[in-house]
Amino acid sequence: MAAYKNKEIVLAQHPEGIPTSDTFQINDIEKPDLLDGQVLLKSLYVSVDPGMRGFMDKGTDDAKGKKFEIGQPVTSRTVAQVLETKSKKFKKGAIVHGRLPWKIEMTSDVDDLEIVDESLDPISTAVSLLGVTGLAAYFGLVKIGLPKKGETIVVSGAAGSVGSTVVQIAKIMGCKVVGIAGSQAKISYLKDDLGADAGINYKETADMEAAINKACPEGVDVFFDNVGGNLFDAIFANINQKARIIICGQIADYNSGNPPSGPRPQHDLIKYSARMEGFVVFDYKDEFDEAKKQLAQWYQNDQLKYKENLIHGFENIPDAFIGLFKGENIGKQMIQVSEPE
Amino acid sequence: MAAYKNKEIVLAQHPEGIPTSDTFQINDIEKPDLLDGQVLLKSLYVSVDPGMRGFMDKGTDDAKGKKFEIGQPVTSRTVAQVLETKSKKFKKGAIVHGRLPWKIEMTSDVDDLEIVDESLDPISTAVSLLGVTGLAAYFGLVKIGLPKKGETIVVSGAAGSVGSTVVQIAKIMGCKVVGIAGSQAKISYLKDDLGADAGINYKETADMEAAINKACPEGVDVFFDNVGGNLFDAIFANINQKARIIICGQIADYNSGNPPSGPRPQHDLIKYSARMEGFVVFDYKDEFDEAKKQLAQWYQNDQLKYKENLIHGFENIPDAFIGLFKGENIGKQMIQVSEPE
Repeated sequence: MAAYKNKEIVLAQHPEGIPTSDTFQINDIEKPDLLDGQVLLKSLYVSVDPGMRGFMDKGTDDAKGKKFEIGQPVTSRTVAQVLETKSKKFKKGAIVHGRLPWKIEMTSDVDDLEIVDESLDPISTAVSLLGVTGLAAYFGLVKIGLPKKGETIVVSGAAGSVGSTVVQIAKIMGCKVVGIAGSQAKISYLKDDLGADAGINYKETADMEAAINKACPEGVDVFFDNVGGNLFDAIFANINQKARIIICGQIADYNSGNPPSGPRPQHDLIKYSARMEGFVVFDYKDEFDEAKKQLAQWYQNDQLKYKENLIHGFENIPDAFIGLFKGENIGKQMIQVSEPE
Repeated sequence: MAAYKNKEIVLAQHPEGIPTSDTFQINDIEKPDLLDGQVLLKSLYVSVDPGMRGFMDKGTDDAKGKKFEIGQPVTSRTVAQVLETKSKKFKKGAIVHGRLPWKIEMTSDVDDLEIVDESLDPISTAVSLLGVTGLAAYFGLVKIGLPKKGETIVVSGAAGSVGSTVVQIAKIMGCKVVGIAGSQAKISYLKDDLGADAGINYKETADMEAAINKACPEGVDVFFDNVGGNLFDAIFANINQKARIIICGQIADYNSGNPPSGPRPQHDLIKYSARMEGFVVFDYKDEFDEAKKQLAQWYQNDQLKYKENLIHGFENIPDAFIGLFKGENIGKQMIQVSEPE
């Protein structure tokens, strides 16, 4: 039997621009002491998301949660298994999920952990399709976008984890869907696998505004934005009266320092009586159960496909995170740390 | 009896920046021929609004209405009296309102004219408090802002025609109201006459962001924006979670050519789960009657004060319009062309 090995990954320094391997440091750590009321967990699946970049800057003023501190483990949505328990809430062997530190094994209070319903879908989906990723797609599109049958929807970052789910929900709702992504493989995935009506590879398109105009001859009713920046402007220039613009992510700007400048949208918001709205999934936490059931049902009915970009090995978490900003992923970036027992 | 005199004011040239007297030209014109189905009207009250500036640029692509053409009369919201009638819809002597050309006397088709309910309020209010001005304040604040009792509301351009109405409706709804305006006289008007909880003179305030922070210790829940530009940024920097930002006017930018640049709001829209929404009153035209009754009732109960900045004389319409951009007005800018008979 191998000697006990535990590791953690901490924030080594605040990144400037896109994170690098120097942003993180892997440390050997001891087996933690299990206190009354706690559980000892083994990490199974770790989710990494572009939005985590915002927690890596200096300062503590983020309204949505505590920033990561130098020398402290990074945290992200994780599926884990209970190895030992001193809590009545979870039995040994239970599969749970929560926002957990990047450690192979860890103790945790149980308040912020939730049980994974193993009857629904593969347990990794607890932090992807049935986690914040799928929920962001669902609530952003359904509750903010209010899409109506026959309307035209443009999705930026359409081959990413949130975007690919938005594309499919919009198709289920009877909309015309145009996806924007950054490679021919992604465009093929959008059109051939997910049913998008059209796809535009922004990396090979000189005039995005004209390309969107051509792909959306009736204009853009709903714009689900995962990207921001100049791509936002090109899509925004094609909105219809009463357009709804869902601001979900701004991957183009996460690494660009304090707020980038661009054309002010106010004039066009008046001209088109349009609405721009930001959100995080936790705004809708009272409706999580209902949304998870709907997402699981679509998944089980094959109406909603779901692709994991699964990397193996705890040590590869930083690279998997950094890779998000290279625009190479199709589907949800996940790291499998270990197998459930 | 004086010889018959009729005049029109046409767009002489497209303004660059703020309009000047050269933008307009006054012409003598003949008495028009009254056709079957038409009425002959005499202009009583002409309303001028900053938003008209948008119709004076070159081009015809404005989504909300036709742009003004060189050599053609400018149009704006006008109260008029029927001098002669060849229509069953209106009797001689009736007081009507509509978007009418700047002419002393004119013929008009009757489809776009509405009768003024003289029982409600002074007839001039048909194109101010009970016209697009009051309706913009009402629908913007009530339908988009969704203010709740005890929330903090900041209004830019607060002493203007729309802003002063927003301030008072927000007070009726039990909110804390902070008004931004550009002179000490306006600040006194906001606080002493309209009941605003605080007022900030932006012309005498070096750090607007800090001043708003001080005036709104609990943050800004609703931001009713009539101004745009840098003032927008200073107020936006103080928004709360779930803030609602009503984009009503952008007087800072109407004269600045194609869209000005500024810090992108997307990141903060996500951070605060906030919403920015533009509108024009005609989005709510099915609800006009209900809103007019409510506004008239508040007015009659002395809960809603209403100030006209009344200028006399047809020839003074251009100066009254140009004056809107000098920031000197308190209340609604109106021109009385003639007395009703």
